[in-house]
Amino acid sequence: MKIRRSDRLVDMTYYLLNHPYTLISLTYFAKKYSSAKSSISEDLTIIRRAFEENGYGIVETLPGAAGGVKYVPFITDEEARLFATEICEKMDSNERVLPGGYVYLSDLLGNPQVLNQIGRIIASQYRGEKVTAVMTVATKGVPIAQAVASYLNVPFVIVRRDSKITEGSTVSINYVSGSSDRVEKMELSKRSLPSGSRVLIVDDFMKGGGTVSGMRSIIEEFDSEIVGVTVFAEAAYTSKETEDYASLIRVSEVNIRNRTMTVSLGSYFDI
Amino acid sequence: MKIRRSDRLVDMTYYLLNHPYTLISLTYFAKKYSSAKSSISEDLTIIRRAFEENGYGIVETLPGAAGGVKYVPFITDEEARLFATEICEKMDSNERVLPGGYVYLSDLLGNPQVLNQIGRIIASQYRGEKVTAVMTVATKGVPIAQAVASYLNVPFVIVRRDSKITEGSTVSINYVSGSSDRVEKMELSKRSLPSGSRVLIVDDFMKGGGTVSGMRSIIEEFDSEIVGVTVFAEAAYTSKETEDYASLIRVSEVNIRNRTMTVSLGSYFDI
Repeated sequence: MKIRRSDRLVDMTYYLLNHPYTLISLTYFAKKYSSAKSSISEDLTIIRRAFEENGYGIVETLPGAAGGVKYVPFITDEEARLFATEICEKMDSNERVLPGGYVYLSDLLGNPQVLNQIGRIIASQYRGEKVTAVMTVATKGVPIAQAVASYLNVPFVIVRRDSKITEGSTVSINYVSGSSDRVEKMELSKRSLPSGSRVLIVDDFMKGGGTVSGMRSIIEEFDSEIVGVTVFAEAAYTSKETEDYASLIRVSEVNIRNRTMTVSLGSYFDI
Repeated sequence: MKIRRSDRLVDMTYYLLNHPYTLISLTYFAKKYSSAKSSISEDLTIIRRAFEENGYGIVETLPGAAGGVKYVPFITDEEARLFATEICEKMDSNERVLPGGYVYLSDLLGNPQVLNQIGRIIASQYRGEKVTAVMTVATKGVPIAQAVASYLNVPFVIVRRDSKITEGSTVSINYVSGSSDRVEKMELSKRSLPSGSRVLIVDDFMKGGGTVSGMRSIIEEFDSEIVGVTVFAEAAYTSKETEDYASLIRVSEVNIRNRTMTVSLGSYFDI
């Protein structure tokens, strides 16, 4: 049965949103809706325009027999700034300052709407690169990795500080924790990352950068490459072992006694 | 500027998918598109029909001044079974059997597409209940909790076995781990769960059920209620401390020496 344009538009929008970075042939849609390819092309023109005008992402069309359509999620600089500014305002509370200069973030990083926007922003940043896996360290980085991986439509892998039987055999490395100056261990399940991967590192909060350095070493052990590093928040008051990273927000002037801090937009927005 | 119906349909579909369980007034859409409410109503009829026919969920319309439209994600029994059956096939590999009768799942639970479907299935199961938070235990349960929470549009909270300074003050309880018979500790950040919450417990793999019992105790400590328990996989070869739960898949006849096991549909599909 031929499906009406209006119904096709709704269904194609749903399908594209659920399959980012996937090349879908026009034949797939033409068969699904018993419609001519020319009609599908017109539908895609409408969807492309609506996505672009609303800043939802790019609907790429690749011509030819091996061609098709691909949805690349995206966020405008304006919307990203607005979101990050709202996060800064939400973080402006002295109840968030914890002993040791840490910051309470679990409410924000347990909110799916916040995580989706973080995922969209970071995925948008690397949309020109060929990322094949997202990496983070357990536990706090996991929701961010998942959100980013969902928009890039690639797997995410979790590096652990403690060995778990449920991972099978692992590769482990030692690293120096920037914040405690102690030598610590981190490990990754052997089969979780294929060699030759192109890895995007994400994390919730960067203090000394030791954890990120550790993940860099792990990626080398797996004969893989680092595409980039982006963290949700960075502490601007500690020296970093690593320089090449972006942050969405920056925490500075933490005063543990008065429980005050200053929160501003991170290096992601510096340009 | 008045927006065309075709563009409205694409944009409203995007908006609804990104705001599940949120009551959106028709006035919001009417203003956004400079269109009459009657046109918006007609758009929603089209979207409702397309969502229903494709098994994407229910688009509820609530009449009256305080009314509006609400998207409730849903999955048909057929699609859920198909997905779970595919997972069973993917799990049918002797390389997954680990010492102690554990099963390697990190590839599946690190795949955003798999996680989204798991989230959709579990959210669909509890769509009639009033869930205000999803709870899990670190680390493996986190991606499932996030996926479910995203479809239910509620926060998720992470119970930890190890104390972390970044959580602030915590409430901790002791529980008996079913698999090791040892007394262990788990804790939850005090401010992460408001009293009076209605909590859905999810986890990746249930063996003895000790972890779930522990989470039940934690929920009581927070003067909150349990709405239900659903795990991705359950081991059918161990006695359980808890009876009231659902599983998407069931692992049985694990032979550690031969590294074989049997995987079948879980109790979610029993009815």
